[in-house]
Amino acid sequence: MNLFFEASTRTKTSFELAGKYLGADVINFQSRGSSVEKGETLYDTALNIEAMAVDLLVVRHPASGVPEQLSRYLNIPVVNAGDGFHEHPTQGLLDLMTVWEAKQRLDRLHVVIVGDILHSRVARSDLWGFQTMGAEVTLVAPPIWMPDWIGSSDIHFTANLAEVLASADVIQVLRIQKERRSMHGMPSEQEYRTRWGITREVAEQLRPDALILHPGPQNRGVEIDSEVMARTATRVLDQVENGVAVRMAVLEQLLGGHDG
Amino acid sequence: MNLFFEASTRTKTSFELAGKYLGADVINFQSRGSSVEKGETLYDTALNIEAMAVDLLVVRHPASGVPEQLSRYLNIPVVNAGDGFHEHPTQGLLDLMTVWEAKQRLDRLHVVIVGDILHSRVARSDLWGFQTMGAEVTLVAPPIWMPDWIGSSDIHFTANLAEVLASADVIQVLRIQKERRSMHGMPSEQEYRTRWGITREVAEQLRPDALILHPGPQNRGVEIDSEVMARTATRVLDQVENGVAVRMAVLEQLLGGHDG
Amino acid sequence: MNLFFEASTRTKTSFELAGKYLGADVINFQSRGSSVEKGETLYDTALNIEAMAVDLLVVRHPASGVPEQLSRYLNIPVVNAGDGFHEHPTQGLLDLMTVWEAKQRLDRLHVVIVGDILHSRVARSDLWGFQTMGAEVTLVAPPIWMPDWIGSSDIHFTANLAEVLASADVIQVLRIQKERRSMHGMPSEQEYRTRWGITREVAEQLRPDALILHPGPQNRGVEIDSEVMARTATRVLDQVENGVAVRMAVLEQLLGGHDG
Repeated sequence: MNLFFEASTRTKTSFELAGKYLGADVINFQSRGSSVEKGETLYDTALNIEAMAVDLLVVRHPASGVPEQLSRYLNIPVVNAGDGFHEHPTQGLLDLMTVWEAKQRLDRLHVVIVGDILHSRVARSDLWGFQTMGAEVTLVAPPIWMPDWIGSSDIHFTANLAEVLASADVIQVLRIQKERRSMHGMPSEQEYRTRWGITREVAEQLRPDALILHPGPQNRGVEIDSEVMARTATRVLDQVENGVAVRMAVLEQLLGGHDG
Repeated sequence: MNLFFEASTRTKTSFELAGKYLGADVINFQSRGSSVEKGETLYDTALNIEAMAVDLLVVRHPASGVPEQLSRYLNIPVVNAGDGFHEHPTQGLLDLMTVWEAKQRLDRLHVVIVGDILHSRVARSDLWGFQTMGAEVTLVAPPIWMPDWIGSSDIHFTANLAEVLASADVIQVLRIQKERRSMHGMPSEQEYRTRWGITREVAEQLRPDALILHPGPQNRGVEIDSEVMARTATRVLDQVENGVAVRMAVLEQLLGGHDG
Repeated sequence: MNLFFEASTRTKTSFELAGKYLGADVINFQSRGSSVEKGETLYDTALNIEAMAVDLLVVRHPASGVPEQLSRYLNIPVVNAGDGFHEHPTQGLLDLMTVWEAKQRLDRLHVVIVGDILHSRVARSDLWGFQTMGAEVTLVAPPIWMPDWIGSSDIHFTANLAEVLASADVIQVLRIQKERRSMHGMPSEQEYRTRWGITREVAEQLRPDALILHPGPQNRGVEIDSEVMARTATRVLDQVENGVAVRMAVLEQLLGGHDG
């Protein structure tokens, strides 16, 4: 069962397809028009879902930690499909898979993640995933979007995109949220594009075999240009394809025990 | 096909799961964004659905009598998933099943239903179901929520919860609708809880083997306290589980003729 | 996958049922609450859908030409489920099928289409379909709803419904859109009904074997009266039934290559 409390196309559809490709029945729980609107607690919703003999729950929620909390209440597997600014683990896995497919290794790669690091669960899952597999990760962001914890960690970070381009094996370009661009102190779209956008000129400073990733949906002309989207080094559709595969693997892994 | 004109989580999902567990294709008809919005009559909608070779229709509607009316127009089975303040028959059946599982009988039990009897289709289906099976039913409600027809019937009713606790075998706790709590003359949440809420103190006046039911979703701290929800005598998750089973039985019963 | 950017009941459900009757998994892409809302281009949405290994896309869009445009981007079949005021090809096919079932031929029939021709994709698909099969088509509309291109074509047209009734073999009654009825210069509901509505009196001027069609949903009492809806010559439910069959044929035709 997909239990999504935030707008989502690709992740929700990706999980739905993954389930169906494996032969499962997939139910989308509508948070609009549901008991949650009637004031039911999330805890009760979860217990009710489990009581209906659902085998696995996929959860997206705007609050960090909700999937983990649910997994403590429930005896069925709970998959985190994105929680607040915290984690998006299947996105991290699909990014690892996409890089691995192209490079046949993950260790000793230099992975650059550029964008709104502060509000990005994708950045965090990528950071932890690539570091775990032995890659070196550099975070690039406008200073206002760089989280506090960076200062006390051994993670490379910089506001200067130019200085990391020559050494990058992979560049993950984060989506710039329209709703945040209009906040006080945020760079304008034009300013963002000039200093952190992946334009054709920026892409040409990358090594020819450097991969360009983006978790989607893209703001063409803001964080990434259409000309860059069309390059063979840009693997955004591989990411989408691998997203279904990774989620199939996660579901299979978690549900396989039912047969074995 | 699920044809739901009211917000619903558990009932809609329960029917969807019941259908899928039986191997059926289940289609959720969206009343938002549908022809019904374009001004099509319910009658035309129903005829159209039948013309699409749907085998069975599950209907929830805010107006009493709609499922019965549809069943007259159509040659396929129509299941009432709740109509206005009228009936919610599968809820009645799942409550019977939950009590039967625990008590192995339904006759000569004393069933207490407490809450907003006036606006509760659950109360009516439970009343008729338990009476039919030989149980004695007492309705408990604030006077403003007691329907007129009670006076002229032989049904026990009282506004005094305390007087029925010692003899109850089952207590069904109805949901208090937030939207009604703010109406003129209605008890406040705090007043309701004090006089009709199932608090720990109230639960302790019940017999140890008395079952506590609630059709959900619960307003914890209003009609039922969290401490009571956690008691082993409280069977709300059994109700949810049995809801799927009962709906599978209803669908099987109604569609079984196709094979036999 | 159903990708619907407009409200729809019967067409969306019809495609969903057609897919499920053929044993396919059908996914409804929600345009509300999706990446399209987040500003993703249609082009990106389509590429993403294809990357998820979807086998076929059914598209409805308020802008003319979108399905055709998508079919150029994608390597999977794209079915037009209605685009703007342009085309609704499966509606055309189901109308052909409904007439063919009743008449056992399409050539040398006189087909009258009455209503808001200007804004009707159904009118265009019917026109092209019936003409291709050798039928003669007359378009009947209030002058304000007759498109410009009619003047320079060899299509029969008139604002006078009465003059074509005696010779019609088929009359397709278009839905009058409530939102357009209130526009400046448009006939009122009452005026429309008097001059172009299919009332009992009008229906009685038709030949006894003339078929009455309507693509639905109907405005009873505006473009068609309830008494006419109930006549045996009125085949609106056959249209709905044949809609599922035609869409099954379209899907089978487009996907059959996977097996053959």
